[in-house]
Amino acid sequence: MTADPFETGLDRNPANYQPLTPLSHLARAASVYPDHTAVIHGDLRMDYRTFYARSRQLASSLAARGIGKGDTVSVMLSNTPAMLEAHHGVPMTGAVLHSLNTRLDAAIIAFQLDHADTSILIVDREFSAVMKQALEIAKVSPLVIDYDDPDFGTDTPFPKGECIGTEDYEEFLSSGDPEFDWHRPDDEWDSISLNYTSGTTGNPKGVVYHHRGAALMGYANVIASGMGRHPVYLWTLPMFHCNGWCFPWTLGVVAGTHVCLRWVRAGAMYDAIAQHRVTHLCGAPIVMATLLNAPDGEKRAFDQAVSFNTAAAPPPESVLAQMSEAGFEVVHLYGLTETYGPAVVNEWHSAWDDLDPQSRVAMKARQGVRYTALEGLSVRDPQTMEPVPADGETIGEVMFQGNIVMKGYLKNEEASAEAFAGGWFHSGDLGVMHPDGYIQLKDRSKDIIISGGENISSIEVEDALYKHPAVQAAAVVARPDDKWGETPCAFVELKPGQTASEDEMIEHCRTLLARFKCPRHVVFQDLPKTSTGKIQKFVLREQAKSAA
Amino acid sequence: MTADPFETGLDRNPANYQPLTPLSHLARAASVYPDHTAVIHGDLRMDYRTFYARSRQLASSLAARGIGKGDTVSVMLSNTPAMLEAHHGVPMTGAVLHSLNTRLDAAIIAFQLDHADTSILIVDREFSAVMKQALEIAKVSPLVIDYDDPDFGTDTPFPKGECIGTEDYEEFLSSGDPEFDWHRPDDEWDSISLNYTSGTTGNPKGVVYHHRGAALMGYANVIASGMGRHPVYLWTLPMFHCNGWCFPWTLGVVAGTHVCLRWVRAGAMYDAIAQHRVTHLCGAPIVMATLLNAPDGEKRAFDQAVSFNTAAAPPPESVLAQMSEAGFEVVHLYGLTETYGPAVVNEWHSAWDDLDPQSRVAMKARQGVRYTALEGLSVRDPQTMEPVPADGETIGEVMFQGNIVMKGYLKNEEASAEAFAGGWFHSGDLGVMHPDGYIQLKDRSKDIIISGGENISSIEVEDALYKHPAVQAAAVVARPDDKWGETPCAFVELKPGQTASEDEMIEHCRTLLARFKCPRHVVFQDLPKTSTGKIQKFVLREQAKSAA
Repeated sequence: MTADPFETGLDRNPANYQPLTPLSHLARAASVYPDHTAVIHGDLRMDYRTFYARSRQLASSLAARGIGKGDTVSVMLSNTPAMLEAHHGVPMTGAVLHSLNTRLDAAIIAFQLDHADTSILIVDREFSAVMKQALEIAKVSPLVIDYDDPDFGTDTPFPKGECIGTEDYEEFLSSGDPEFDWHRPDDEWDSISLNYTSGTTGNPKGVVYHHRGAALMGYANVIASGMGRHPVYLWTLPMFHCNGWCFPWTLGVVAGTHVCLRWVRAGAMYDAIAQHRVTHLCGAPIVMATLLNAPDGEKRAFDQAVSFNTAAAPPPESVLAQMSEAGFEVVHLYGLTETYGPAVVNEWHSAWDDLDPQSRVAMKARQGVRYTALEGLSVRDPQTMEPVPADGETIGEVMFQGNIVMKGYLKNEEASAEAFAGGWFHSGDLGVMHPDGYIQLKDRSKDIIISGGENISSIEVEDALYKHPAVQAAAVVARPDDKWGETPCAFVELKPGQTASEDEMIEHCRTLLARFKCPRHVVFQDLPKTSTGKIQKFVLREQAKSAA
Repeated sequence: MTADPFETGLDRNPANYQPLTPLSHLARAASVYPDHTAVIHGDLRMDYRTFYARSRQLASSLAARGIGKGDTVSVMLSNTPAMLEAHHGVPMTGAVLHSLNTRLDAAIIAFQLDHADTSILIVDREFSAVMKQALEIAKVSPLVIDYDDPDFGTDTPFPKGECIGTEDYEEFLSSGDPEFDWHRPDDEWDSISLNYTSGTTGNPKGVVYHHRGAALMGYANVIASGMGRHPVYLWTLPMFHCNGWCFPWTLGVVAGTHVCLRWVRAGAMYDAIAQHRVTHLCGAPIVMATLLNAPDGEKRAFDQAVSFNTAAAPPPESVLAQMSEAGFEVVHLYGLTETYGPAVVNEWHSAWDDLDPQSRVAMKARQGVRYTALEGLSVRDPQTMEPVPADGETIGEVMFQGNIVMKGYLKNEEASAEAFAGGWFHSGDLGVMHPDGYIQLKDRSKDIIISGGENISSIEVEDALYKHPAVQAAAVVARPDDKWGETPCAFVELKPGQTASEDEMIEHCRTLLARFKCPRHVVFQDLPKTSTGKIQKFVLREQAKSAA
């Protein structure tokens, strides 16, 4: 057998092979469009030349403190320029960026700092108090740098705390070299960031991303969001959330403008959209609600097309209609921390525009198809690993395969092996595959309600509740029941000024659902939500146990 | 020293790593938009479901004949559906696609078939005669398949030849399995295609592409061309030319429509643009000239934005102005066979729209900056490998680094090593680096004219000639001279109905250039061009020797 001539004498060398990295996107934008505005924050305007130079300065200062490959730099920052700089400056040293959710309590922060073995910590003064507590609990003693946001504001929901570090961010950064010869990864498989899942049981798991996936997400986000050159992106999604779905790195591909937003409030959002001609923003449904329910005095007119990427829950009909009327095109995405944020997109067919409103919403409610950078999306029986029939009915586990799936969980080979069993990433989300290849979530495994041996999808019951005109938000969980095992228990937030009774809600559901699927209990209250707008069902599950 | 926790227990597995391949783009488009039109050819409309199924059928039939990794399938095809199917069906087997330039003579074809060790050959009946000759010369005896284009037409510049193969393309393909379980590459570094350079001296070299580069070009072309979802792409660039700059694979990323065009003639182009609402096309300057010089009766009005990607020579001012008036936006690209086609793009700054016309053209004439998928673009001294100063003056060799640079030359380790010396791909093109990081070509190494020890850029002299109102096309080459070593000799093609004298041309140049740079001889004649519209300077160099 002779050697394959197509694989002989045709090896990799620096001319024809370079590791993929999203840092290359920023370097290119800075070289091609140095004068274009990269970052807006309050009165601050930072062009690409400066953004790149400051990121290199940060890298240089970190490297001067010994930070390099294998090290962790943790940050607890709002959507500020410092957070964007950290997304580039930290990996430029070869180190890993660990972004802390800014709503965590001291114990969990301490756990993460210890688990990540943090060497340097950058903390916004909004979070000084909780971080001080966390550092008292933590075993590690990182170098602490305070970030004092010049645009912190005065009319703020939270006060600015004291300095708790030994360095000031601006001083630290400015000691660095703006021409720092940054570290291209040795291998595109090298780690770039670490994001802890907000698991509701046990300790959070540390999801590790690599340069390869982050670079590919740059392309895939641009394509999924339909970004042309120079988009203007408003930071309503927290950057600590899956690295802001990788958009801090994505905008370099098309030399876009980041509009920072420290406090996500309706007036500030409308002001930014109108003033900076924002073209794209991302956020959980709560952000849409904030926009739609803004007092008239805070709303601003704008005439550009604005694309709103949402995830976490399918947008209800009324919200879609209102968003469209308010000038936003809603793109429905889906993904997990383990898939770099969005890895599934509801690719819209223009023919669907002609459907009746209800069918249109049904189409929009589906999570969709794989991102261009994802190679496999499937709904499978986790036991047999066989794909479920594409009938839109048979429930299985949503699974992923491809280059925008995490490297694994840090220092947790057991959890990684479990997540990757059978060569697919197991999302833990339950869903169906429609005949046209679009997936639709039916529930988290733990959110399914099993009543009298029958599975009830909590999403299906919630959809029914949302169709009641008085309902603002609804969540359905299992309530232990002696006779049936579990029964559906609904928690409902009513629109301002609206009233409704438990019986009325149950009757309403009966017009739409099989009797066994209808809630046995309905509780009217504000729903507990996470910082990213997800409803905290684990809280409701506790409450449901005692619902009368 | 402890192990790096970020590189421990976080290895590749099928869930988190899949080789990049452009075949994935087609598979996705077929899954998401099965009913969208993928290919138009005359009266034929092929949707993505069918395009994908036929590509798999082709792969299946090839595999049934033993074709797989390490094999070569050669094709000599026009811009027809079969050529698009070959771009997907051949690599689906693991084999390499070798596209022959359809204007080659029998001897060169035979050389290529032997060098590529062709197993199967698909040939359009337009090229039967030359291929029959070539097969008589060649040592290999591939299985030959005739492609009989149903849209060959009757009013054709060339006749349809006899069948020379043992199989008919449609019969061969239809025996295959439309559900064929195609071969994802074992490694993204696996070879996908082979394109021979049209070297003017010695034997052509076989440039090998890999799946990784072709997949990344999919993203990069979409971004450079500003393609939204569902672009309509007119095939005026030959697909045998650097695999049609990778656009056969690119359109899958955005589920675009390929509009085939067997005969590139003005009327057919305008008809396609108007009828199919074409949004993008590519071509050498000759294609622009064909569009602009079309008789009024063949021109058609259209109201969509049409983007014309051109390369090979910077567009002269008059052409840009006319193209704009005719409704085309010209994007200037640059690359080589060795860089998958375009790897450099003249990224346009909106501020440049406000420049005076001459300055605007000067900006547009620059080749530009690296493609998003290219990692390094540099102008260097090939001896020292030092970058030249970014002064827009100092000439050096244009060099490339990144993942859209070829694997190397097939069975030619010496040429590969030379091309990749010092870790950069040496293009052989001479250019300068402007202070803003944009490169501009000054000449091929062999096109520079050395007169009295001074370097004269033939491009600079040609630019001056193009500014004369009677000039349609111009080319300047070196003419051996006893006194000066070399002097510039100009070949000029006049616009229809125009006249001009040699003295007038030389005088015109003197108003624009230093005296030593002006042509000593001017010859009026039609310029010899390659099949892709490039002027054949080696022919002119021969003629120049005897120019009086």
